[in-house]
Amino acid sequence: MSALRHLEAGDYHPIVRVADQWWHGRPVAGILLRVFFEHFRPTSFVIEQEDGSILGFLLGFCSQTNPQQAYIHAVGTDPSHRGQGLGRQLYEHFFAVVSQLGCTDVFSITSPVNKGSIAFHTRLGFEILPGDAEIDGVAVTADYDGRGGARVLFRRRL
Amino acid sequence: MSALRHLEAGDYHPIVRVADQWWHGRPVAGILLRVFFEHFRPTSFVIEQEDGSILGFLLGFCSQTNPQQAYIHAVGTDPSHRGQGLGRQLYEHFFAVVSQLGCTDVFSITSPVNKGSIAFHTRLGFEILPGDAEIDGVAVTADYDGRGGARVLFRRRL
Repeated sequence: MSALRHLEAGDYHPIVRVADQWWHGRPVAGILLRVFFEHFRPTSFVIEQEDGSILGFLLGFCSQTNPQQAYIHAVGTDPSHRGQGLGRQLYEHFFAVVSQLGCTDVFSITSPVNKGSIAFHTRLGFEILPGDAEIDGVAVTADYDGRGGARVLFRRRL
Repeated sequence: MSALRHLEAGDYHPIVRVADQWWHGRPVAGILLRVFFEHFRPTSFVIEQEDGSILGFLLGFCSQTNPQQAYIHAVGTDPSHRGQGLGRQLYEHFFAVVSQLGCTDVFSITSPVNKGSIAFHTRLGFEILPGDAEIDGVAVTADYDGRGGARVLFRRRL
């Protein structure tokens, strides 16, 4: 049995510890800033096992620039528990919560190399937003991160 | 003449470009994630010269976990314009804006090695919060960032 609950500040250390291995050494852990764990509890979630070990998490928030927009900042699931719908469960719970908070659109981004993430977002009803370049047939925004890194931008209407 | 205005998403690239040199190569630029520039405009500001060049910026937001708390995520000023009160101007403007938004407390953190930042926060009325360790006589929270990095935590009541 696993259960979905709100993310707490105390989840920060356990998640940072596993993040590097979940992402196979890619530097995703660098975006897991502690501020997200402290200040966006209402729209951030974890799925944990009965023994308290974390199987997945989602860090998201409502935009303060455009309160009708919600943004998914980072999502991770334990590689040994993939294929069980944990990612979908986290996203769909997020959709329901931010919809209640008045959001009409959810945004997310991913790296163009992450084909699995692109397919996952598409299955969940996200559209790929127009970019200014194309990589492997996918629209991307070049230099999205200010250091030359292109990103695929997604939007899903609620 | 310089002017203070809201931070816009378009400020992301100019600020990231200068951040590494403003911080003398310290990896502060890693916390300047684009999401902060996109989604926290109401509480984020830049001071720019008439020619559009940026002299300083502040990225902040209101906590969604505790809406009475405001958090200053990052502040930077051009080293060639230090001592002109730009940092104080950014902080005080932030205090006024988040107070209008219903916040009663402002939080900020810094690295224990950054003596200038500790003195600056103290001058602006921040108190240093109790920690679980001490470095050079200053209370710190050990392993605040999950990778062994201690931080000094500040709070200022509005």
